[in-house]
Amino acid sequence: MTNEADTPPAELKSPKHWIIGDPLPTEHLEGQLLPKRFALPIFASDPLSSVAYAPQELLMILMVGGLAFLSFAPWVALAVVVLLVTVVASYRQLIRAYPSGGGDYEVAHRNLGEKAGLVVASALLVDYVMTVVVSVASGVDNIISAIPELDPFRVELAIVFVIILAAINLRGVSESSKAFAVPTYLFIGSVFVMVVVGLTRTVMGDPPVAESAAFGVEAESLTQAGIILLLLRSFASGCSALTGVEAISNGVPAFRLPKVKNAQMTLVLMGGIAIVLFAGLTAVALISQVHYAENPCSLIGWTECATEPQRSLIAQVAAATFGDATIAFYVIQATTALVLLLAANTAFNGFPLLGSVLARDGYAPKSLSTRGDRLIYSNGVVILALAASLILLIFQANLTVLIQLYIIGVFVSFTLGQTGMVRHWLRELSRLRHPAKGAPKRAAKGADETAPLTRGAILRALVINAIGAAMTAVVLIVVTVTKFTHGAWIVFLLMPILFFLMMGVNRYYRDVEREIEVDPTTTFGATGDHAIVLVGRMQKPTLKALDYAIAARHDSLEAIHVSLDEEQTKQLKKDWVKQNIHVKLRILNSPYRDLSYPLITYIKSRREEHGSEVVTVYMPQYIVGHWWENILHNHKARRIRQKLLLVHGVTVALVPWLLDSSDLLYGRRSRPLPGQDRRGEPVRPVPRRPLAESNQKRPR
Amino acid sequence: MTNEADTPPAELKSPKHWIIGDPLPTEHLEGQLLPKRFALPIFASDPLSSVAYAPQELLMILMVGGLAFLSFAPWVALAVVVLLVTVVASYRQLIRAYPSGGGDYEVAHRNLGEKAGLVVASALLVDYVMTVVVSVASGVDNIISAIPELDPFRVELAIVFVIILAAINLRGVSESSKAFAVPTYLFIGSVFVMVVVGLTRTVMGDPPVAESAAFGVEAESLTQAGIILLLLRSFASGCSALTGVEAISNGVPAFRLPKVKNAQMTLVLMGGIAIVLFAGLTAVALISQVHYAENPCSLIGWTECATEPQRSLIAQVAAATFGDATIAFYVIQATTALVLLLAANTAFNGFPLLGSVLARDGYAPKSLSTRGDRLIYSNGVVILALAASLILLIFQANLTVLIQLYIIGVFVSFTLGQTGMVRHWLRELSRLRHPAKGAPKRAAKGADETAPLTRGAILRALVINAIGAAMTAVVLIVVTVTKFTHGAWIVFLLMPILFFLMMGVNRYYRDVEREIEVDPTTTFGATGDHAIVLVGRMQKPTLKALDYAIAARHDSLEAIHVSLDEEQTKQLKKDWVKQNIHVKLRILNSPYRDLSYPLITYIKSRREEHGSEVVTVYMPQYIVGHWWENILHNHKARRIRQKLLLVHGVTVALVPWLLDSSDLLYGRRSRPLPGQDRRGEPVRPVPRRPLAESNQKRPR
Repeated sequence: MTNEADTPPAELKSPKHWIIGDPLPTEHLEGQLLPKRFALPIFASDPLSSVAYAPQELLMILMVGGLAFLSFAPWVALAVVVLLVTVVASYRQLIRAYPSGGGDYEVAHRNLGEKAGLVVASALLVDYVMTVVVSVASGVDNIISAIPELDPFRVELAIVFVIILAAINLRGVSESSKAFAVPTYLFIGSVFVMVVVGLTRTVMGDPPVAESAAFGVEAESLTQAGIILLLLRSFASGCSALTGVEAISNGVPAFRLPKVKNAQMTLVLMGGIAIVLFAGLTAVALISQVHYAENPCSLIGWTECATEPQRSLIAQVAAATFGDATIAFYVIQATTALVLLLAANTAFNGFPLLGSVLARDGYAPKSLSTRGDRLIYSNGVVILALAASLILLIFQANLTVLIQLYIIGVFVSFTLGQTGMVRHWLRELSRLRHPAKGAPKRAAKGADETAPLTRGAILRALVINAIGAAMTAVVLIVVTVTKFTHGAWIVFLLMPILFFLMMGVNRYYRDVEREIEVDPTTTFGATGDHAIVLVGRMQKPTLKALDYAIAARHDSLEAIHVSLDEEQTKQLKKDWVKQNIHVKLRILNSPYRDLSYPLITYIKSRREEHGSEVVTVYMPQYIVGHWWENILHNHKARRIRQKLLLVHGVTVALVPWLLDSSDLLYGRRSRPLPGQDRRGEPVRPVPRRPLAESNQKRPR
Repeated sequence: MTNEADTPPAELKSPKHWIIGDPLPTEHLEGQLLPKRFALPIFASDPLSSVAYAPQELLMILMVGGLAFLSFAPWVALAVVVLLVTVVASYRQLIRAYPSGGGDYEVAHRNLGEKAGLVVASALLVDYVMTVVVSVASGVDNIISAIPELDPFRVELAIVFVIILAAINLRGVSESSKAFAVPTYLFIGSVFVMVVVGLTRTVMGDPPVAESAAFGVEAESLTQAGIILLLLRSFASGCSALTGVEAISNGVPAFRLPKVKNAQMTLVLMGGIAIVLFAGLTAVALISQVHYAENPCSLIGWTECATEPQRSLIAQVAAATFGDATIAFYVIQATTALVLLLAANTAFNGFPLLGSVLARDGYAPKSLSTRGDRLIYSNGVVILALAASLILLIFQANLTVLIQLYIIGVFVSFTLGQTGMVRHWLRELSRLRHPAKGAPKRAAKGADETAPLTRGAILRALVINAIGAAMTAVVLIVVTVTKFTHGAWIVFLLMPILFFLMMGVNRYYRDVEREIEVDPTTTFGATGDHAIVLVGRMQKPTLKALDYAIAARHDSLEAIHVSLDEEQTKQLKKDWVKQNIHVKLRILNSPYRDLSYPLITYIKSRREEHGSEVVTVYMPQYIVGHWWENILHNHKARRIRQKLLLVHGVTVALVPWLLDSSDLLYGRRSRPLPGQDRRGEPVRPVPRRPLAESNQKRPR
């Protein structure tokens, strides 16, 4: 159970955050905001980690056309860099306008309406899953590049990592999240050094040579259209370098003041680093002639293609630059794997958070907005882990296949987010022109810390977002066209399913809302008050329930025993007398050995006889200390309860009984019975009072 | 929910059945007993289906030593037949002594004590799972023998069949169970015809020749000890023909009168058929020179070993006898596959039944004895399906590997069951000698329909069971020794785990029993009676809860609203006045936006102030019509309830609210509010009474 003392200070929980989405759990638990030096690595592990696979996928697709096509690589890489710059610039604007952390979902929802918001939401949900899947698959790929013996356990390793990530997140990661900074900086530093060393060696006339440099490749013969499609596919694969750029826009509330400035600076810094690493790694890979093929056995000259794993591009570059199996090589592989797992971890922050926002907006089950025992949206974490594991299992953790399902979601969300921003700036412009119209509610938001924008500033932002929207829309089309038949159709199947599920949930909640609404015909009029204590055997929980029922002094009270076994019934009757209980014990026979049926029949016949009345049925409920004890308890009681709740006029009163084992969890035992602990006489037996007085009709 | 009208007639549900185990669900639902012509196929599908794989595994192991070893085959098969005769004779005795359907578990438990009973239980549980696994794997193997194109989907096919079987059993099979007779009779008939045709052709000088007759085999060179071990292994594999013989002893209550006689006759008939089919199939396989190898690529002369599946022995015999791809061939394959799936189905009857018996004896979670919506022990079905799927997945549905894990459980249970019978007859003997001693309770049982046994009869039964016990013990040792390193160690790991789990569950239930036992220090003394209605928004379920709370006329009553949103709270206050509710509405502030914490704090402070009292908290509970609606409801309420139940002196009263959708399931809607439907005035609004009177202290 949640320990209330852990609840964060109130100032972090202003209604604003609750409407739009919580700030990152990081901040929630720590109660302090992130300086830039921590914010950068925490948010940047996702976008920077994509450097580990984006150049590889880009070059790999080009290789399908033969080695000659590698000469296109710099241009394709340049296109990716240009796109990256545009997207970073666009998100700088988004951060300023929506510093609340709602991200693209919020922007699309507010500016383009419910349906656009849900499209973004379904795209993001799919993409969070794919972030985990691709990052973990790539991380495992790099581990296998360093330790090829692990190749047979690729899928198992990947799923184990997902489980570990889920477990860490269910426990609550935030305490250690600053430790996340170390691997990210190590990754940036070591890849940077590798690029510099590689380029220096080239300038010095000793360029690194990759292990696969000598391999030829079986080229497909392509038509002109085929060539263009191949270039576009290569570009689309390279675009995976853009994933995660949006992370900072979701995390603005976690930054130190001035939030917007700091977030924008971090975004630009991250963009710069990503470009340097992406371009540098692509360059050194081309120089050292890494030949990485989609189908390893299409490499001419490599005989072990069937038995040995093809090493990742980054591993080949590291081996070429620093020498194979050197310490530097292992450092590169280790930090790459680590930063990829951290990237997967960001999805474990983002997915449950988005789920909770959707739940609060009524598009997802409300249970997704319930924080678990450790203030984590546990249900979201579990769903993400299951979905990711399933996909890893189905696609056998094959990075090349998985990357085809990736980034479609990202670009759907990019495009709709930027389009929403265009809408936003247009409205801001019209507001400047007609200030009397009354500012839209959200307009004040953007002005939190920055002064109201001038017409010029708005126009500039409008242009930037329009370019961003147009470019990401074009890329979305490219990505869709080039990837659709390679597996992306699955995403286009999943997204509408999620969309309609969320719409359905929303409509359902709305219908229920309407159903339980109080209307003019709503009337009152329950009369009569009868109580029943369900008695199985003479045991303490039963006595406690009886005691509570007596204390509630109902108009009439009786104990009911459903007889399944004559011996047991006889024993109960004896105990009843022995315990000096003056409440009437009624025995119901059950020819079918069913507990609830005779009880229900009795209650129904009572209501026919005595007219309508409220019947309160007291039942003991066990409270246990271990999760597994739940498997062993309360099943019969729950089934009876379910059936009783269907009977007109019945209320079920649960009288808790804490088993000794619950001491473990809640620090108290149930041993002292009602009379004992209250009077502070836990040892001396309290004289019994006869349990009869209250079993009489009170004057009305 | 269980429709009570479906409950079987009372005479089938005598206490006897409840102690020992229910009769088959078949009979439960149909309310009629099985004539022999249906009982034979229903119980015999398991033992007869093993004919489909036992000869194959027997010959396959011999082939490891080379083709020359096949000359041992008739002798090994003879040993299996002798064993089968012994076991059938032993079970004839068991049926007479324990006609209650408890089987080996009951016999061992009663005669050899708790631990022996649990050993048998764990052996049987493992074996039920393996029955499903082996039968399904063999069934899929035979389907693939007919349609080799399905080979790549072996595991998927197997798991789909398990899911189908589970689904059928969750729905309740019994309506169609007489249809089970058809495939079993077809199988018996068609295999019999095949054997006769094969032998006739041999006598006529045109013996069938199998497709693998020409293949040689790479023989392992064996030492003398190795030869003996190989013969024993072959025998052990052949012993899989014995599985399922015990099924009839579990099903005696389902037979028509005279039950014992009919069951015994069915058992003997089944044994005879099994022997004929087993011996006949082995003979024809030897005549047609089927060469079936453990490792297909050890067959000399077969070049497609890596790409094509090796066809099952029964398929090769059918192809040799009737010609490949003839209608007769497909009939054999289809009926074989069907009867194997039926055999898997018997485990889906047996496993949940054993689980429920164990649950009633306190060795398994009580939920295993809870019948699901369709009177099926659903939890047992689900557990069996999951376990079987997992094993099929791990072992890739490879029959040869799986068969190594099989029959160990069967022989553990055979041995202990027969030993228990020896104990039983010895006691009967001593009872005959000292009749004054007072008949043991169970002795009368056996005499249900047969006259008390004479000394001679008891002695004969004793000898038969003693031989059975000795032989099965020897076979158990042989099976263990020969299979241990081939995978059987897994069974020897699982059985103790299950054993200790069951012991642990038993000890746990015992401890709890002791904990809640009423002892001399048990006292009473709850005083005071306060009620709280938890109010979120002004909605019908809340009003109903309030109405019920008022009707219960507690000493004091208040409505509590935990304020999370100022707007909402204001609205509620307005509605409160508008609805003319005179109950005091208390607003609690929640700075941390937690619903339960302020409420708990308030209750605790109240109890400090007002002294000890019972506080009843009324909460609405939604009742829904579809399972998926549960995902969308009651989560917040359940979490609050869990926390409230931990507070001293608190009782939670659940006031049900049936959503319209529950109409689907339960045939009623909740629309009429309390005052309406009771007075039979569903349309005319009932005048509201002010909700205040009861909110006053009554004189004590």
